[in-house]
Amino acid sequence: MTEFDDLVRIEDGRADISPGWVVGAAVNGGALMSLATRAAVEATGAVDAHTDPVAFSTTFLAAVQPGAVEVATEVLRAGRSFSTCEVTLSQGGVACVRHSATFADLDVHSEPVHRAETPPEMPEPESCAPAVRAGFAEQITILDRLDLRIDPATVGWAVGQPARDGEMRAWIRFADGREPDTTALPFFLDAMPPVTFTFGALGWAPTIAFSGHVRSRPAPGWLRMRITTRNVVGGLFEEDAVIWDSRDRVVAQSRQLAGVRMPAAPVAS
Amino acid sequence: MTEFDDLVRIEDGRADISPGWVVGAAVNGGALMSLATRAAVEATGAVDAHTDPVAFSTTFLAAVQPGAVEVATEVLRAGRSFSTCEVTLSQGGVACVRHSATFADLDVHSEPVHRAETPPEMPEPESCAPAVRAGFAEQITILDRLDLRIDPATVGWAVGQPARDGEMRAWIRFADGREPDTTALPFFLDAMPPVTFTFGALGWAPTIAFSGHVRSRPAPGWLRMRITTRNVVGGLFEEDAVIWDSRDRVVAQSRQLAGVRMPAAPVAS
Repeated sequence: MTEFDDLVRIEDGRADISPGWVVGAAVNGGALMSLATRAAVEATGAVDAHTDPVAFSTTFLAAVQPGAVEVATEVLRAGRSFSTCEVTLSQGGVACVRHSATFADLDVHSEPVHRAETPPEMPEPESCAPAVRAGFAEQITILDRLDLRIDPATVGWAVGQPARDGEMRAWIRFADGREPDTTALPFFLDAMPPVTFTFGALGWAPTIAFSGHVRSRPAPGWLRMRITTRNVVGGLFEEDAVIWDSRDRVVAQSRQLAGVRMPAAPVAS
Repeated sequence: MTEFDDLVRIEDGRADISPGWVVGAAVNGGALMSLATRAAVEATGAVDAHTDPVAFSTTFLAAVQPGAVEVATEVLRAGRSFSTCEVTLSQGGVACVRHSATFADLDVHSEPVHRAETPPEMPEPESCAPAVRAGFAEQITILDRLDLRIDPATVGWAVGQPARDGEMRAWIRFADGREPDTTALPFFLDAMPPVTFTFGALGWAPTIAFSGHVRSRPAPGWLRMRITTRNVVGGLFEEDAVIWDSRDRVVAQSRQLAGVRMPAAPVAS
């Protein structure tokens, strides 16, 4: 069994999250979004092949620790084209994550392509340095689950030269070779370091709320990601992410609101 | 009492929506988002002045007709910095809208501005034609609630010359002079015609899921909006909206996934 399939395994309404999915002292939000996605698919019984989370939103109410997680689901709709399920992840009876997702069959929503965002130009993965757990990244345990290659043009922050432009790009895939699917995309959407690193703000950026769309089933191979922010105000910022697959198709997009402690000197927009 | 304040009035867990808020045969989604926002603020009792919906998401499960709506709320968190409430709007016992919102006090999240999106260049409102209920817009009853002035450069679709560029810009405010506030911003975020009109697809674009951030309390006066789409695939598209207030500040941003029936000939991206 792959590491990711172990993460999202649910038995008798419980999951057991390994310590390998933490960032700092808490389980990574993206890992929890993928766990909730799997719970919803199991709860709906994949009505009419509605296995793809075309729209989801997640509110993070309290930090989750590795170990047992209670998984509760409520099916809100099982319709002809779309099914909707709400998932609550709890620990010790305390609700920590509330996740709502609408599922469809992307086989019937993949063509025709009238308009599509093209992937960014990037050096090949072999020309990007792998992100590893060292220095500032020592506490980012989930990096061990990933093969993450950040575009060198967007990684000046790691050597004290933040570009201050609010954009980071990377190649990403699972370290153990598991191929991406639409259950894994919510995890990948939140797997990069916060885009606020590009302003030299190298601290944790706690997610308040996260929402995403899965637009196509990913082909095997590397994914490419771009994360950006355009508004960093009063300690809050939005982070937008887009993921393309190896066929150059947009497979997922997301936006989150998160908190940040910015360096003392304001950065001009 | 203004039209909008009448819309969001809740008594004994019920609202009564006037026929003035419909588009076609159903109540406009944005009107329902603002009603849910007001319900959540009343349910939390505005804990610690957390009256501003900094992040919200809404799933549309079934169409709502004008008339009585049952309003149920569940407070998920009443924290130091953020409070979260889930709202369900039902008719005849059938859940039609599920809305989740996290509230904060934007007085403490408005400064400093490290990075901000600047408003688009647009002709003054006096140089833009008011959008009125005529022709294709006859069924868009909510236009009577609005003073909506679409930038002429983005309105070619109305005269058979769609720009096919996925962008529309407008000035917007309430027709009866009520000033905008953070409860009204969810309504405004969904008040323009669908951005797919710019591709000549002049039909209704039903929202599947909607998520938004309110970033600042709006100053009195005109709001400016820009809506865009970058991915129109297999009958689904995302619509991004940004609203600026009269001080040129970003006050809200959103993304929705919606359905569209595109004209027969695919449009090149």
